[in-house]
Amino acid sequence: MKKSLSLLALPAALLAAALPAQAQVPVANRAITQAEVLAAQTGWCKALLDIGAAHVSGGQPAAKALAEKVIDAAYGYQLGPVLFKPTLTVAPQTFRTTRAGALAYFVGGDAAFPKDDGFALKGWTRCEVSNSAIFIAGDSASTQGNVSFTGKDGKVTTVDKTWSYVKDDAGGLRIVVHHSSLPYAPR
Amino acid sequence: MKKSLSLLALPAALLAAALPAQAQVPVANRAITQAEVLAAQTGWCKALLDIGAAHVSGGQPAAKALAEKVIDAAYGYQLGPVLFKPTLTVAPQTFRTTRAGALAYFVGGDAAFPKDDGFALKGWTRCEVSNSAIFIAGDSASTQGNVSFTGKDGKVTTVDKTWSYVKDDAGGLRIVVHHSSLPYAPR
Amino acid sequence: MKKSLSLLALPAALLAAALPAQAQVPVANRAITQAEVLAAQTGWCKALLDIGAAHVSGGQPAAKALAEKVIDAAYGYQLGPVLFKPTLTVAPQTFRTTRAGALAYFVGGDAAFPKDDGFALKGWTRCEVSNSAIFIAGDSASTQGNVSFTGKDGKVTTVDKTWSYVKDDAGGLRIVVHHSSLPYAPR
Amino acid sequence: MKKSLSLLALPAALLAAALPAQAQVPVANRAITQAEVLAAQTGWCKALLDIGAAHVSGGQPAAKALAEKVIDAAYGYQLGPVLFKPTLTVAPQTFRTTRAGALAYFVGGDAAFPKDDGFALKGWTRCEVSNSAIFIAGDSASTQGNVSFTGKDGKVTTVDKTWSYVKDDAGGLRIVVHHSSLPYAPR
Repeated sequence: MKKSLSLLALPAALLAAALPAQAQVPVANRAITQAEVLAAQTGWCKALLDIGAAHVSGGQPAAKALAEKVIDAAYGYQLGPVLFKPTLTVAPQTFRTTRAGALAYFVGGDAAFPKDDGFALKGWTRCEVSNSAIFIAGDSASTQGNVSFTGKDGKVTTVDKTWSYVKDDAGGLRIVVHHSSLPYAPR
Repeated sequence: MKKSLSLLALPAALLAAALPAQAQVPVANRAITQAEVLAAQTGWCKALLDIGAAHVSGGQPAAKALAEKVIDAAYGYQLGPVLFKPTLTVAPQTFRTTRAGALAYFVGGDAAFPKDDGFALKGWTRCEVSNSAIFIAGDSASTQGNVSFTGKDGKVTTVDKTWSYVKDDAGGLRIVVHHSSLPYAPR
Repeated sequence: MKKSLSLLALPAALLAAALPAQAQVPVANRAITQAEVLAAQTGWCKALLDIGAAHVSGGQPAAKALAEKVIDAAYGYQLGPVLFKPTLTVAPQTFRTTRAGALAYFVGGDAAFPKDDGFALKGWTRCEVSNSAIFIAGDSASTQGNVSFTGKDGKVTTVDKTWSYVKDDAGGLRIVVHHSSLPYAPR
Repeated sequence: MKKSLSLLALPAALLAAALPAQAQVPVANRAITQAEVLAAQTGWCKALLDIGAAHVSGGQPAAKALAEKVIDAAYGYQLGPVLFKPTLTVAPQTFRTTRAGALAYFVGGDAAFPKDDGFALKGWTRCEVSNSAIFIAGDSASTQGNVSFTGKDGKVTTVDKTWSYVKDDAGGLRIVVHHSSLPYAPR
């Protein structure tokens, strides 16, 4: 994934070079591209590890401060409820439609969400996305596939994950749907 | 759900009555409304029970024939890959991006998907949707919440479910994202 | 137009009353409705007359100050170039893709746009929209039809007008396409 | 225009080459790209000249037959009313929200539109687009600028033109807004 993303930078430059005429026409583009979606996924993984690193160096308060920034930048709680079903939540707090619910899930420490112990604080050392398919509707885009988290002990936890993004007025992608679940385990 | 949907019909009629001037302006509307989303959910539940009923009366071939119609009418496989993670699938066939994979999940009987025994053939007697939140992006709309299936023995199975829809050229909603999972069960 | 808009308020209240169950589900809605489009049109007409009134009471500076507020609230220059072809502009300044170009058109007084004498300062006493058709694409919506401006002398000027709107993150409609032209006059 | 479009083909090939990993992930893309918009514009100009050529070789019936194909392929009348204000129409038939109205404008010969003598039959030898700006909303995209038509006598007629497109289920762009007008001529 990382490899293909670094390659992505190349054609962008070439594209600009090949479009001298178009460069002169002002263009506003609110459509979402595949490259933007892949960058958002990579960014999510990096942010998760960064919050864990902040936890190691600065404790839960540092992790919480960073998680707030991440949520405010990468999720769409400013736009309304976010459809967020984290991997490890249970009823009656399964769905985290509010910013507070998302924050509690990632870093814990919120008495209103007593079962949350902080998914980002579990010491993940690696986070990788493997998409099954991508659907770009225009002003929204969705991905589905696996995300694999590697723990301190090297154990890999793989989840099934769906994300949907919209583009905000500043041109950034925001997660407005996030459904994560452990694989079905038939008994 | 059924109750609120029957009420929905009322304001629609009133709206038309209150808008004589607007009625004369031709309008094309490709945006998705909340009422359309709720109707699509109700339709999905009804179709699931109908496929089960076809199974009882006509066997797997009848169920399969109906399931094909349902998938062709309610999912977006004509538009490209569908991001479909059914409740009970496992790797390496977790994600059903193709029509064949969806069909196998609902009615089984496909040697290419040997673990599928037909989710729609399990004798469900009731299917109910309880939304946690809805996000309408414009040309797409997403819901997240619980869907509860009642079995022949009266036992209720509740899943966490995300659906995203787009509107096709004929004005119908099509599922392009479907992520279903059993609730997380902490040990 | 004004009549049908006041009627519009009625079904909205009824709709809310008829949807007690839905009222409990948080909903984000970025789709554009017909009612929002009609309100935006009425708002544009009102703003034009208001700028004219500000001109009468406070001179060009007052008109300009109000026009800046109107443009910042109703057009999409924050989002990128706006596709604005005003009624009375000529080459090489026909198209006003920038905020400065729009402002000059409405209130004049900009040496960079020497032919602009301020369309909003012409003493209009009435502005009415008559739509030919409306196309709602989802995250954008377009209208086309006539807009009639009544002058101080009672003379009515009718133009052919197209507007397209997008919805911003705060839920407001913004004009991103505006094409206005005098009717074709065959010789 | 033609030159920049042939250059466009280059980066597309490079992009594919640079994305081996992505090539394996199925992607549905309903967003509109700048390249698709430019191709649709070039296609419109070509179709206009082609209809004129059909007129020369096969008379009005041949021109009409081709115009019907062009309209059915390039406009959105299947989706609802099209917001079409042609250059040379007058009230009460200024706006051509129906397919019949568009057809009459391009090739004439319809008693219901007595003033239409067929814009495509005027012997144009060249048609060129010069965009002022482009706004891509996601599932719709708009352009505004000049289109220049060269007549048999070499005289060039330039119009101000706005087009908006949506993408249909088959992935093709369709014109749903078209506003064309002669430049304002101050007296």
